[in-house]
Amino acid sequence: MSGNTLGTLFTVTNFGESHGPAIGCVIDGCPPGLALSAADIQHDLDRRRPGTSRHVTQRQEADQVEILSGVYEGVTTGTPIALLIRNTDQRSKDYGDIARQFRPGHADYVYWQKYGVRDPRGGGRSSARLTAPTVAAGAVAKKWLKEKFGTELRACMTQLGELPIAFESWAHVAHNPFFAPVADVQALEDYMDALRKAHDSCGARIRVQASNVPVGLGQPIYDKLDADIAYAMMGLNAVKGVEIGAGFASVAQRGTVHGDAMTPQGFASNHAGGVLGGISSGQDIEVSIAIKPTSSILSPRPSIDIDGQPVEVVTKGRHDPCVGIRAAPIAEALLALVLIDHALRHRAQCGDVQVALAPIAASC
Amino acid sequence: MSGNTLGTLFTVTNFGESHGPAIGCVIDGCPPGLALSAADIQHDLDRRRPGTSRHVTQRQEADQVEILSGVYEGVTTGTPIALLIRNTDQRSKDYGDIARQFRPGHADYVYWQKYGVRDPRGGGRSSARLTAPTVAAGAVAKKWLKEKFGTELRACMTQLGELPIAFESWAHVAHNPFFAPVADVQALEDYMDALRKAHDSCGARIRVQASNVPVGLGQPIYDKLDADIAYAMMGLNAVKGVEIGAGFASVAQRGTVHGDAMTPQGFASNHAGGVLGGISSGQDIEVSIAIKPTSSILSPRPSIDIDGQPVEVVTKGRHDPCVGIRAAPIAEALLALVLIDHALRHRAQCGDVQVALAPIAASC
Amino acid sequence: MSGNTLGTLFTVTNFGESHGPAIGCVIDGCPPGLALSAADIQHDLDRRRPGTSRHVTQRQEADQVEILSGVYEGVTTGTPIALLIRNTDQRSKDYGDIARQFRPGHADYVYWQKYGVRDPRGGGRSSARLTAPTVAAGAVAKKWLKEKFGTELRACMTQLGELPIAFESWAHVAHNPFFAPVADVQALEDYMDALRKAHDSCGARIRVQASNVPVGLGQPIYDKLDADIAYAMMGLNAVKGVEIGAGFASVAQRGTVHGDAMTPQGFASNHAGGVLGGISSGQDIEVSIAIKPTSSILSPRPSIDIDGQPVEVVTKGRHDPCVGIRAAPIAEALLALVLIDHALRHRAQCGDVQVALAPIAASC
Amino acid sequence: MSGNTLGTLFTVTNFGESHGPAIGCVIDGCPPGLALSAADIQHDLDRRRPGTSRHVTQRQEADQVEILSGVYEGVTTGTPIALLIRNTDQRSKDYGDIARQFRPGHADYVYWQKYGVRDPRGGGRSSARLTAPTVAAGAVAKKWLKEKFGTELRACMTQLGELPIAFESWAHVAHNPFFAPVADVQALEDYMDALRKAHDSCGARIRVQASNVPVGLGQPIYDKLDADIAYAMMGLNAVKGVEIGAGFASVAQRGTVHGDAMTPQGFASNHAGGVLGGISSGQDIEVSIAIKPTSSILSPRPSIDIDGQPVEVVTKGRHDPCVGIRAAPIAEALLALVLIDHALRHRAQCGDVQVALAPIAASC
Repeated sequence: MSGNTLGTLFTVTNFGESHGPAIGCVIDGCPPGLALSAADIQHDLDRRRPGTSRHVTQRQEADQVEILSGVYEGVTTGTPIALLIRNTDQRSKDYGDIARQFRPGHADYVYWQKYGVRDPRGGGRSSARLTAPTVAAGAVAKKWLKEKFGTELRACMTQLGELPIAFESWAHVAHNPFFAPVADVQALEDYMDALRKAHDSCGARIRVQASNVPVGLGQPIYDKLDADIAYAMMGLNAVKGVEIGAGFASVAQRGTVHGDAMTPQGFASNHAGGVLGGISSGQDIEVSIAIKPTSSILSPRPSIDIDGQPVEVVTKGRHDPCVGIRAAPIAEALLALVLIDHALRHRAQCGDVQVALAPIAASC
Repeated sequence: MSGNTLGTLFTVTNFGESHGPAIGCVIDGCPPGLALSAADIQHDLDRRRPGTSRHVTQRQEADQVEILSGVYEGVTTGTPIALLIRNTDQRSKDYGDIARQFRPGHADYVYWQKYGVRDPRGGGRSSARLTAPTVAAGAVAKKWLKEKFGTELRACMTQLGELPIAFESWAHVAHNPFFAPVADVQALEDYMDALRKAHDSCGARIRVQASNVPVGLGQPIYDKLDADIAYAMMGLNAVKGVEIGAGFASVAQRGTVHGDAMTPQGFASNHAGGVLGGISSGQDIEVSIAIKPTSSILSPRPSIDIDGQPVEVVTKGRHDPCVGIRAAPIAEALLALVLIDHALRHRAQCGDVQVALAPIAASC
Repeated sequence: MSGNTLGTLFTVTNFGESHGPAIGCVIDGCPPGLALSAADIQHDLDRRRPGTSRHVTQRQEADQVEILSGVYEGVTTGTPIALLIRNTDQRSKDYGDIARQFRPGHADYVYWQKYGVRDPRGGGRSSARLTAPTVAAGAVAKKWLKEKFGTELRACMTQLGELPIAFESWAHVAHNPFFAPVADVQALEDYMDALRKAHDSCGARIRVQASNVPVGLGQPIYDKLDADIAYAMMGLNAVKGVEIGAGFASVAQRGTVHGDAMTPQGFASNHAGGVLGGISSGQDIEVSIAIKPTSSILSPRPSIDIDGQPVEVVTKGRHDPCVGIRAAPIAEALLALVLIDHALRHRAQCGDVQVALAPIAASC
Repeated sequence: MSGNTLGTLFTVTNFGESHGPAIGCVIDGCPPGLALSAADIQHDLDRRRPGTSRHVTQRQEADQVEILSGVYEGVTTGTPIALLIRNTDQRSKDYGDIARQFRPGHADYVYWQKYGVRDPRGGGRSSARLTAPTVAAGAVAKKWLKEKFGTELRACMTQLGELPIAFESWAHVAHNPFFAPVADVQALEDYMDALRKAHDSCGARIRVQASNVPVGLGQPIYDKLDADIAYAMMGLNAVKGVEIGAGFASVAQRGTVHGDAMTPQGFASNHAGGVLGGISSGQDIEVSIAIKPTSSILSPRPSIDIDGQPVEVVTKGRHDPCVGIRAAPIAEALLALVLIDHALRHRAQCGDVQVALAPIAASC
């Protein structure tokens, strides 16, 4: 109710602040019998981790996860899985100025208005650092989905600032710091280098895909699968837009074009993005998200302080000039968490029948 | 859990099928002491009602709402408000063909796969008719928000198919069947007439706005205000994309541009769309949604039947050639429902302190 | 959240007031494919109905249920089942006095304090009449449990005021107005006749049993099966105590006696009442509840009015002198609703494996 | 949904196993601005702690709590409060036998049936050790209730096995290991010494009281205050019965006696136990619970193993011969958690009006 728990049957309760002693989460509802170790989780945490290239924040955090409960002899027991990540690189410094000023585009002002008290250290609870527990929980969800249905989660960058990135292959994504589906990222490197020198930041567009998703996941009226995906994605820090399938392009499409024809061999196209009437169709789930430029920039900005007086704010410290760069593994995790939740809900309603995979159309 | 209830503290439990005996909802959590009559609700139902122009479905439904409970002597009592709308214009006919075939772009196939049984009459539960109870509940939410905070909800069409619609004034919206913010809608009339003749359908883009929203609504990590807005909007039938504030345009913006500067007189711009870090800033909430072209069209489409055999489907009956035309009041209702829910959650956490309205920047 | 919804996966959202236009509920989460008609529900409603003997309230209500949604061609579709019961025997009269006075032992005072407004007609929402929708929903739950697991629900009266009722046979319960498990109820008839003449009321003790319950229902820490049973039963109007298995007698038992020994042929006793560590053991679930004497009595009682002034209250109208008499079918319904909810939760977690029935000890 | 979270607005998500690396909880929904330190929580943890007298388990656990989040500069921030307690005295030994056998009266058998896998070390998740996080969370709730309303929570033992304990004074409770409200506990000491020598265990009855509770807490139909209290108490390990106010004694009471008369000076009696129609009346909340004898006893018991073969089980290790002895602080915590949750729910519905305390009748 207080917005720190994601999901209904596979729930993730997130805790922690950017510069507090630790961050983590409690996963409840993970089915028993899943082989699980810290290494299974660490892999995705490492993909999201700061400090891995010059284009992201230089904060050094090992993000080592400890499993505190819910796993016995390497297997989940059906009881809550508590995951703990100690913060190690909180710089002790004077937060006096930041504590009294509101950074434009940041949550500073609204936290102060909402709670009357806020933790200003590194953004406190509003920091993107709090996506780490989400990624950790997503790794558990991914593993179950993979074993149960063969579901694969993937994400890549399709635009960096003004630069569109043409899709070449999923195979490239793991081999560059941008999660870009291209072999040559020199243009992206140059773009980011220029941006940093300009003391500015930029946005990004991320594509997220799930393949081998069973038919029938999602609810008919309010908890539609695409509604829950939109909720999860829009809740990711800095996201300002979410599309499913053809997205905003569907406005200008005609019905004769948009509606994906069905044949005995499968769907002939995937404008729907894998969701019909709020329920998965068995086609690939296709999602696209817009990430705004980072608000923490070195350029001075006009703002006010807690007394309402005008001030000029310069955000020093270690920040990502494009938070979208590290968003791919987080977006995958969020999609996985939505899918596992709906898979369990479907199982509650309809039992553990073998959920058929629909004939699947070609998809890039 | 089964996806028929919206909200956490102000909940709307929706029931009914398009051609069943009745549709309706139960509102739970409405604060006591609100003056409420059926007329308060009927106004918005009439705005959404079918059959009001030649550009929408010709099904005739009075959509008369009956308040079954929760109101005593014209005032809400704090107990559940059950709203009932009888279906009156269900045409009795043979649904044999429809019951065995899957219309492309429709929920037919996925309902059949999910439940193993489906009500094929008029789309059953997947029909957009089920947005009527949402609109009814939204009217109650709007009234409370208006009396408590002076909050105003508005929505208008900003694009019809390929036609962009330049914003002139909110004052025009109530005076044309398109909810268009323009004085002259001849181009829209002509567009729709041509479309109907072509036996085709088109999409639309809708802008939704809430003004006089208190600061501080929304939760920090998962139930962010924008996340819940995205969830509500993407759950509206046919929606394929949701934007908050600058939306997808923010990808190509720089941080120096996007971050809304703060001054003692208020925010200098509203790229954020009224939400910072998932919490309302007191600026206008600005949302834009993409609605796909209607799947029910007279043009024949290739599909399959329940035996997997190829068939050609022609969807007769009474359908909206652009479901976006009636979407404005529904989108307002959804935004109102999200706002009242977060207002009550905020009150639970922080008490009923007078929620300050932030200085508000000029907004069209 | 506002306390009008029971359950988590099989939810019942209850609405209505005693003298409003209608009462009813929306059942969400009922699995698809269950054959269901109004007659299936009416049977239990008739068992609970007022006016069936001289020992209960003489209000005449047919309690005819209408299924508004969720059933197509006699089979549940997996979508919400809305049930409507019109009130027909609300006596129009002046509620002026009752509206200004607080009846001792009633909810009048607390409703007025909580909401600042209350519906005084027949107790409004606090009336035991609102158990009818619970009974209706319970009938659906019972049908599913019976078909799925062979589960049987039964309840009987084991004490009327000071009179203990020795258990003879379940077969007698349907043949007397007290739901008493005895052939001869003359003593109970005489007791009630004397009570009515004395313008007084009395309490009752009810035993509730479920047999053929699968092993494994219930959660480990907070949503234990017995915890949810206690919640459901204590929530029944007038209940002041709940026991599982040996109940309060277990305080004076030794561990060597209380712990039910296990043998290859089954449990050797059932002091646990079918629940171990919060999870069903496959033995009969055994519950006992204490129902207080009705507060609405003809004898004058000292009280206060809404101005805090002393008044003498006499409750006229049509009331049950022992609300426990009609409690048996309600208690069965509540137990059924708890069991189906946990059965679906178990299925979400662990899949639809054939849930084994444990070897069951002899049970009366 | 998986039963590890208590509450709706003030939620406690519990994690851990008896012999795993740690236990703990995440509190979500705690209002901001409450002064809070580990010492505030440690006090109640120490009251519940094992090893403090010869009458309880000799396991040595410091139960030192660490606050991981949600508190900044000694004040709650409105974000999740994660509490961590490391397990330190898990004895490493061979669990081979226990892992293959089911102890009578224990959760062993049902966990194995439910999950297909179980952590047998010290009872795993079913251990009463998991009440420690509940007590820790309850300490936070108590502090807020005390500061907000002056609410006081108290619990004491009123029966030990067959020995009733006459109430003398709350002042004695803190001065003996039994939480007994009497000055002289020699009889209790002797009783327990004899019990241990007999290799047996016994039950206990605990009384729980909350005073200075505002009027108006609780919901009308399903989430009645007494229903949620019954749920919380019955969920405490080993509890088999719950009473509110007069409890089972009300069965034999007449309405003229049971209904608490109201006068301008307050209620004349408290048979209701502080709850009318499911809503607090402002009188003391009075609860009584029955705790069964511990199942872990040194006397040999007949049982079966995982192959269904008969075995004789002797439970060695360190166990409480009467788990009721340490139940008082846990019961207080549970009652506090129910009350704070309903206080926040009430605030959501009706705002933060000063909740009036009703005139309160004399109470021991």
